[in-house]
Amino acid sequence: MNPFELTILGCGSATPTPHHFCASQVVTLCGKSYMVDCGEGTQYQMRRCHIGFQNLGHVFISHLHGDHWFGLIGMISSFALLGRTYALHVHAPVQLQSTLNHLLQNYCSDTPFEVVFHAIDTSVHALIHEDSTMKVYSLPLVHGVPTCGFLFREREGGRHIVRSAIDFYNIPTWVLNGIREGDDWTTDDGTVVPNSRLTTPPTPTRAFAYCSDTAFNPDLVPLLRGVDLLYHEATYADDMQSRAELYKHSTAREAATIARDAGVGRLVIGHFSQRYNDESVLLNEAKQVFEDTILASEGLFLRI
Amino acid sequence: MNPFELTILGCGSATPTPHHFCASQVVTLCGKSYMVDCGEGTQYQMRRCHIGFQNLGHVFISHLHGDHWFGLIGMISSFALLGRTYALHVHAPVQLQSTLNHLLQNYCSDTPFEVVFHAIDTSVHALIHEDSTMKVYSLPLVHGVPTCGFLFREREGGRHIVRSAIDFYNIPTWVLNGIREGDDWTTDDGTVVPNSRLTTPPTPTRAFAYCSDTAFNPDLVPLLRGVDLLYHEATYADDMQSRAELYKHSTAREAATIARDAGVGRLVIGHFSQRYNDESVLLNEAKQVFEDTILASEGLFLRI
Repeated sequence: MNPFELTILGCGSATPTPHHFCASQVVTLCGKSYMVDCGEGTQYQMRRCHIGFQNLGHVFISHLHGDHWFGLIGMISSFALLGRTYALHVHAPVQLQSTLNHLLQNYCSDTPFEVVFHAIDTSVHALIHEDSTMKVYSLPLVHGVPTCGFLFREREGGRHIVRSAIDFYNIPTWVLNGIREGDDWTTDDGTVVPNSRLTTPPTPTRAFAYCSDTAFNPDLVPLLRGVDLLYHEATYADDMQSRAELYKHSTAREAATIARDAGVGRLVIGHFSQRYNDESVLLNEAKQVFEDTILASEGLFLRI
Repeated sequence: MNPFELTILGCGSATPTPHHFCASQVVTLCGKSYMVDCGEGTQYQMRRCHIGFQNLGHVFISHLHGDHWFGLIGMISSFALLGRTYALHVHAPVQLQSTLNHLLQNYCSDTPFEVVFHAIDTSVHALIHEDSTMKVYSLPLVHGVPTCGFLFREREGGRHIVRSAIDFYNIPTWVLNGIREGDDWTTDDGTVVPNSRLTTPPTPTRAFAYCSDTAFNPDLVPLLRGVDLLYHEATYADDMQSRAELYKHSTAREAATIARDAGVGRLVIGHFSQRYNDESVLLNEAKQVFEDTILASEGLFLRI
């Protein structure tokens, strides 16, 4: 099974602390990297966390609060200085397009690669990117500005060939791709051998979801069903419930409630308010609802 | 004597390394802070280096390569979130004004303080700011885009009163400010006591100069005469002399030559190319020309 991995580059909230960088993480599958959010300092964190610049093809920006995208232009500028030549795709709310164009034209005019902008409609759950290994879907979130999360689901592979059955029926190699895709086999005497005798089901696909920033939003539950790993913001603990509602953020308990109700495999919470020097209060409140919860931290590496 | 201090927040060059942040430093005198350049990550480094946000009134941007200003909008955004209410003055090449306006209007529209932009003419040596404690002058530099360094000179205080002379001539308190400023004293019998018998000269003023980014530029020498501390870029060692010329940067040896010829007190070199894992090569080459040289590093704190 191909490694499907998550590296947290930053999990702080809006203002910096000595311990947390702004929001950014990198999902990797089959050697391809996908970035989610790109707060200030992301390019430093990529170096520190040994994330190769060359494998990053797509950046997904959840919303346009600065702590989620102010690192983008610096990262692009560094890619240019390092001689990147292949396109970088930026998926973000449409408002960013004119800003990015202005910054690129004025401060990175000699960028030797294309920056391709893809506007996201944050209000709908939709497929926004697919390639040979991954499908990426938007997840509408509830925040002060248009915001969406992202669901990364690996593409389903073909069914698995049962070697002994292929040999038994003497099935030629050139039809095996069809068999993997579900074709039956007809023998010389016209007998139809159903695909289910020739193959076993595909390996179940794995999925990771990123939900930040958002108020408590039970509408996410059906969209997150079956997700192996969920990153959900947990800006506040119970003591700041009213503040969470005011600023459209979630408490750790609310993040865990979404995880529990969606039956996800594991929950990692982040986007911590700087007021929590001891983040174990957030972890403990989440674990009361959903035991398989861990705290995000800079450099945290998780296999999905 | 009031502490006059320099803290280096970042001393890397254009692309990030695990060890260096982009250009930024803070000069402090009489509790007031002045920032020079504001590369990405500056606000993190301020936290880590315990530089108070509240004392920073002025930011001076040397030029508009991203590694010298991409941290500005994030820092302003954080100041806003932390409730700053008093103005922040940004001194920079004029091109930044429209960009900053665009970013502020679109991404920091609720900033509760004024950002006052002051365009710098980087082509001349001129006084660009003065307040009750400091005078700041531009220093024309030679680089690929309009660039200037900055000379921070503390304001000259008054002459020092010779207490015994004041008592001897029975000079009243209400004329002492005039005496400090150079007035003579006339006794009741009309005898003029020259100021030189009543006072000693003012404490010599101290000065710090920042020269980055720049090609070797001997025109700086007369402008830097008498400077106590000089920060000069030293992007390359001798092995990259031709590259330094091509990209209009300096070698460590050239930085030291400027320091020696200007007779500065101390030299601190920075803006190191990422190719030098061992920066002692830069230090050694500089010391061959100017012994009182030190290497910049993140968090380095120097009294001027």
